[in-house]
Amino acid sequence: MMDATVAALAELVGGRVVGDGARRIVGLGDLRTAGPDRIGFVRNVNYHALAAATRAGAVLTSTELATEAVQILVRDVDLAYAKVANLFHPRPRAAVHSIHPTAVVDPAAELEAPVVIGPHAVVGRCRLGAGTVVMAGVSIGDDTTIGRDGLLYPGVVVYGAARIGDRVILHAGVVVGSDGFGYAREGTSWIKVPQLGTVVLEDDVELGVGTAVDRATLGTTSIGARTKIDNHCHIAHNCTIGADTVMAAGCMVAGSTRIGARCVFGGSSVVNGHIQVCDDARFGGDSRVLKDVDKPGEYWGYPLVEKRQWLRLLQKLRAMVVPAARADTAPPRGDG
Amino acid sequence: MMDATVAALAELVGGRVVGDGARRIVGLGDLRTAGPDRIGFVRNVNYHALAAATRAGAVLTSTELATEAVQILVRDVDLAYAKVANLFHPRPRAAVHSIHPTAVVDPAAELEAPVVIGPHAVVGRCRLGAGTVVMAGVSIGDDTTIGRDGLLYPGVVVYGAARIGDRVILHAGVVVGSDGFGYAREGTSWIKVPQLGTVVLEDDVELGVGTAVDRATLGTTSIGARTKIDNHCHIAHNCTIGADTVMAAGCMVAGSTRIGARCVFGGSSVVNGHIQVCDDARFGGDSRVLKDVDKPGEYWGYPLVEKRQWLRLLQKLRAMVVPAARADTAPPRGDG
Amino acid sequence: MMDATVAALAELVGGRVVGDGARRIVGLGDLRTAGPDRIGFVRNVNYHALAAATRAGAVLTSTELATEAVQILVRDVDLAYAKVANLFHPRPRAAVHSIHPTAVVDPAAELEAPVVIGPHAVVGRCRLGAGTVVMAGVSIGDDTTIGRDGLLYPGVVVYGAARIGDRVILHAGVVVGSDGFGYAREGTSWIKVPQLGTVVLEDDVELGVGTAVDRATLGTTSIGARTKIDNHCHIAHNCTIGADTVMAAGCMVAGSTRIGARCVFGGSSVVNGHIQVCDDARFGGDSRVLKDVDKPGEYWGYPLVEKRQWLRLLQKLRAMVVPAARADTAPPRGDG
Repeated sequence: MMDATVAALAELVGGRVVGDGARRIVGLGDLRTAGPDRIGFVRNVNYHALAAATRAGAVLTSTELATEAVQILVRDVDLAYAKVANLFHPRPRAAVHSIHPTAVVDPAAELEAPVVIGPHAVVGRCRLGAGTVVMAGVSIGDDTTIGRDGLLYPGVVVYGAARIGDRVILHAGVVVGSDGFGYAREGTSWIKVPQLGTVVLEDDVELGVGTAVDRATLGTTSIGARTKIDNHCHIAHNCTIGADTVMAAGCMVAGSTRIGARCVFGGSSVVNGHIQVCDDARFGGDSRVLKDVDKPGEYWGYPLVEKRQWLRLLQKLRAMVVPAARADTAPPRGDG
Repeated sequence: MMDATVAALAELVGGRVVGDGARRIVGLGDLRTAGPDRIGFVRNVNYHALAAATRAGAVLTSTELATEAVQILVRDVDLAYAKVANLFHPRPRAAVHSIHPTAVVDPAAELEAPVVIGPHAVVGRCRLGAGTVVMAGVSIGDDTTIGRDGLLYPGVVVYGAARIGDRVILHAGVVVGSDGFGYAREGTSWIKVPQLGTVVLEDDVELGVGTAVDRATLGTTSIGARTKIDNHCHIAHNCTIGADTVMAAGCMVAGSTRIGARCVFGGSSVVNGHIQVCDDARFGGDSRVLKDVDKPGEYWGYPLVEKRQWLRLLQKLRAMVVPAARADTAPPRGDG
Repeated sequence: MMDATVAALAELVGGRVVGDGARRIVGLGDLRTAGPDRIGFVRNVNYHALAAATRAGAVLTSTELATEAVQILVRDVDLAYAKVANLFHPRPRAAVHSIHPTAVVDPAAELEAPVVIGPHAVVGRCRLGAGTVVMAGVSIGDDTTIGRDGLLYPGVVVYGAARIGDRVILHAGVVVGSDGFGYAREGTSWIKVPQLGTVVLEDDVELGVGTAVDRATLGTTSIGARTKIDNHCHIAHNCTIGADTVMAAGCMVAGSTRIGARCVFGGSSVVNGHIQVCDDARFGGDSRVLKDVDKPGEYWGYPLVEKRQWLRLLQKLRAMVVPAARADTAPPRGDG
């Protein structure tokens, strides 16, 4: 079991200790139930009473409290929590080289030990960096490179010819490198355009359950470093997404679109094909981005407008059918 | 082959026999083609002529008909049909204990015989109740409990630490216990928050193809008894959904939301994070639920309003661009 | 390596040669980097300068150019490109009969040699036509027929009792024949209605990643010849989709709906249940089709109206919250 002093935890999170920094902590705990070898978290004022009564050995907090726990004072409790939680619950990593006897690994595959290849995984003529874990039933096609400390959950499929960086996490059902949706019209029919390009996922990308990143028609579909994409998203062929962007569940990005760095997309948003979105644009959930966005800011809705404008538009639409008196006095219900 | 008298079927569905209750029935049949050992169904008046001419041995009907078939009179033909169909077509159930030689089962797994483990399935240190069928390529992580008579279709992935009740059906590609989408911001980057919680699926839950239920950050994501969720849905971390709720395909529920019992969600609906929806709320397809809903009723749209208000709003919006004369006289086309 | 004269390529695409038709071409190339044994593509005027300077041996173009490359003049460069690309990059096809030793194939399966069955695939009592490739981890249930030259990517699941034509492509994670979402209400609960029907996919259908086609309750869910459906789509039970229809990513079609031939659906569109859409109807992305559509044409939006009406409605909605001066002068941003 991991074990750290409060002082070491404070150093990890850049916090200040109030109390005995030598106290030893072995894990996270709930303020209600934790004992003296656990650290709890005070996210806001609602937790102050719990903190006052807690038997936890330490707490992370942004304001000094009345409590017998040792306190680590930090500016951002959520960030500090993430760091401490990662310390006590590090992500899976291959420590001992291990290839399950049921796995089918191409003799020409280059595996930088240690890697873990799970049962029934199929690994083509590709390269895997040290620390990478390939779980049950994963299928990795030829000519793929995966960096160090990758994590591929059961059922992930990489078609092949993909370049995947270090510390990339692909959740169950993720598909990388599938054919883009490209057809040429011949009369009233459609002829498939061979999809010959590739996919690049830079370091620290994480893709949620079932998310698909199609290979480019020619060239590359790419997702920038540290970008996080939630479940059930679709990134079409030839898209480019910048670094540090976040996309919540169910977003759909059509082909050849370029999205900048540090963008945020609320869930179920749709971005049209062949458009450009600049860096630092933020979109409320369910936004429809049909034209270029070239100024950072907060956008929302369909038509896409500034966030405060969208909220006003929703209000105006509601007023078209909800009697004014009721709208004023009714308890909040649904969006309005 | 299953075989039952009309009288026995009538008892099963709480119906009244008109004719010879001793007639033996071996299965369902179409009124046009069925022979005398089959039972057909008269859902509404459009079937009356078929029923008059049928050679089927029996019919389920809500009104007495002119037919030579034995009639079972019931109030709700759809419900009676479901019961009779389940009799003749019971769902798959493990009858003989059988572990495919290619399956990889942890020696510490507790399997209550009979269970069926299909080819290439991977079963961790978990507990499976009698009658449960685990099909090809399913992956079940450690510390999971699955009750009796479960049905896991090919490719299902359970990450681990899930509690799954009796008679739960998970269709192909379902993922249970995947990481919630949780990050803390550090400067312009995002640090993953370890997802340490679990998932509870109560008895008789059914999840459609590709639906994902993320594990909680801490605590539990839970889905109540008999709740049915269609294909391609997303239930984010820390959500709670009550019993007997129904959610059609493509619904997305963001994190930490609580949905009550007996709710109905039309397809492609989106429910925002951190909100509460009371029991017995019904939402038309494509609804956007951005605020708490605390009164049972029929809601629809975006902005979410009462159903009749939404239909009126659609009409008003249409009138803003469709000339009145045409709107009155044009054949119905698309929504208006 | 494939090798063809420019004259042969011109014949393939129905084009006219300008220059030496005897020149030999071995593959596609980028105008910037290709050598004399490659063919490049001039899609529009932006490529004219590149074409003038290219060292490629040949170019496909719709207007005669100043270039030393041999030119193939065609009316539709995209279509010609598709044909040439398919020549040099034919889709995978089983050439040598090969069943991976880890595959589990029912002894009663009828395999018309040559077929390829990949590692860990599970093939029930079904029939596969010559040329078909079944990749890693695919699961095919009993009583399924798959025609010639099929291509099933890793992780595809066919529940069984499906009829799949020739040259059908199913991408990773596709599920065919899953239960429709059918329940009968009993009191406040729901009783599953057994889904006993089947799925028919006609010749040359292609289904994208994770798309699910549910089996019919009774009867058939069917998708017409040459119809292409992108990633993450949902085709519910008892739907019928005509031939040569195209559906972009994330579309949801509810149960018992009939869609005609040669329709086009933009991504994320939703089609309600129990409705009819005629042939040759085209829908912009995100359309909501809630009523029958019985006239060919271009539709868009929610409420669904004619395309130009929807664009006007978006403009009017925008004008409700965006000051007129700004709307006129601001750089285009998002949809408006």
